[in-house]
Amino acid sequence: MGRLIARRPVVRIGPDGDRTRPDSLAVEEPLEIRVDGKPLAVTMRTPGHDVELAHGFLHTEGVIGSVDDIRDARYCDSRDDEGRNTYNVLDLGLAPGVPPPVTGVERNFYTTSSCGVCGKASLDAVRLKTRYSPADDDVRLRFGVLAELPDALRKRQQVFDRTGGLHAAGLFTPNGELLVVREDVGRHNAVDKVIGWALLANRIPATGLILIVSGRASFELVQKAVMAGIPVLGAVSAPSSLAADLADESGLTLAGFIRNGSMNLYTHQHRITS
Amino acid sequence: MGRLIARRPVVRIGPDGDRTRPDSLAVEEPLEIRVDGKPLAVTMRTPGHDVELAHGFLHTEGVIGSVDDIRDARYCDSRDDEGRNTYNVLDLGLAPGVPPPVTGVERNFYTTSSCGVCGKASLDAVRLKTRYSPADDDVRLRFGVLAELPDALRKRQQVFDRTGGLHAAGLFTPNGELLVVREDVGRHNAVDKVIGWALLANRIPATGLILIVSGRASFELVQKAVMAGIPVLGAVSAPSSLAADLADESGLTLAGFIRNGSMNLYTHQHRITS
Repeated sequence: MGRLIARRPVVRIGPDGDRTRPDSLAVEEPLEIRVDGKPLAVTMRTPGHDVELAHGFLHTEGVIGSVDDIRDARYCDSRDDEGRNTYNVLDLGLAPGVPPPVTGVERNFYTTSSCGVCGKASLDAVRLKTRYSPADDDVRLRFGVLAELPDALRKRQQVFDRTGGLHAAGLFTPNGELLVVREDVGRHNAVDKVIGWALLANRIPATGLILIVSGRASFELVQKAVMAGIPVLGAVSAPSSLAADLADESGLTLAGFIRNGSMNLYTHQHRITS
Repeated sequence: MGRLIARRPVVRIGPDGDRTRPDSLAVEEPLEIRVDGKPLAVTMRTPGHDVELAHGFLHTEGVIGSVDDIRDARYCDSRDDEGRNTYNVLDLGLAPGVPPPVTGVERNFYTTSSCGVCGKASLDAVRLKTRYSPADDDVRLRFGVLAELPDALRKRQQVFDRTGGLHAAGLFTPNGELLVVREDVGRHNAVDKVIGWALLANRIPATGLILIVSGRASFELVQKAVMAGIPVLGAVSAPSSLAADLADESGLTLAGFIRNGSMNLYTHQHRITS
């Protein structure tokens, strides 16, 4: 885990005085994603699974639809002050015929509608951009299985155990089998890594699968799930209003506050059976 | 709290069966920030204190240094499908002589250094861009006071109490007096709102003040604190490696895991006294 965890000295103070000891921190480093040599985005992420992260990001932004849309992915020869490759610049080449991404502020989801920037326009934009709809996914999942998934995710969070500083996302089957778990300092990055894994495994659209996230469910995370064709999203914490609205409109089952054997179902609860 | 909380039906399932009831969700809506009519950024935020948010964002991005750099701020006449103003587009006019912001990928902190994108370059860029340094701030704060601040912040989180879905940030004096608290679905927005409040109150640089955040301390949050000249940042959860590195280099006191009467001090612990 060389690039996932960094050691730093820390002074621990408590009721019994203080002591200095080495502590483990989750590593955060910038990743610049380029497409055909042109910078597209910089994200602060935990190193590791960068190729998955870039694939997931490009897919959930609507740039690529399958692994065949990428010709190659390679780290650029970016160097730090001491001449070492930083492994922080990843260049993805698009396959012939794949249109390049739109860049600038206008690439956002929120300015594509004539009605100006608003929640409704954000929902419209996802509907226009997504290649899949979870609405027709007839997967069913037992309540008791879903209730256990956050704990199953938590047990696989190796870096969190040592740092307390990472978000996690995982993909599960309806039987509760864990397919993949990824951790990152950014919650959106953890989800992009999981979706990138699915894309590289030719499992997009991710029909019949369940995405579990360790924190809250924002509009952005629901958007990513919808773009990947995932029918069920479960979060340990609360969703936002716009997350629930997008899930409702997209046919996604959204569960929140999955804790201690209970949960809230916000949308399309028919997929959760007793 | 009309635009802060939305009501949605929810099915609550637990060991004792299920029931449908209305639930309160934190509102999330896009805000487009324009400068002199030109779109600069879109952020998903909880409505309210948008003028503070935009001021804080522009300050921590290095665009403005004081409230005098802004000529005016007004909501654009953006309309939704039903002809109502969305109050989601805010246009800020720069005062004469203030250079417009650099836009595009290159406006990021991470590509300004010759060494390419890396943690070191990120640190260098903040050093080049910030107008203030917390290094010489001789404020002192008692350990017992700092240990209580997250609880004081938590008690003022009105929206969190009803939704469980918001981050919070607050500014305190060394005596533990709360100056301002702001909540948002995005942790960076909560901090921008607090810093924008300080800017509008002519309290930037925020020498001698303590910023408390409800979650983790990322590089981005430390950057915002440094840009505002804040000498002490305390987080309820973990910092990242790059957050600790930037705090170390900038002279900021960084505390994490402030819980149950204990805490970790990562950098410049001399400001915390027993």
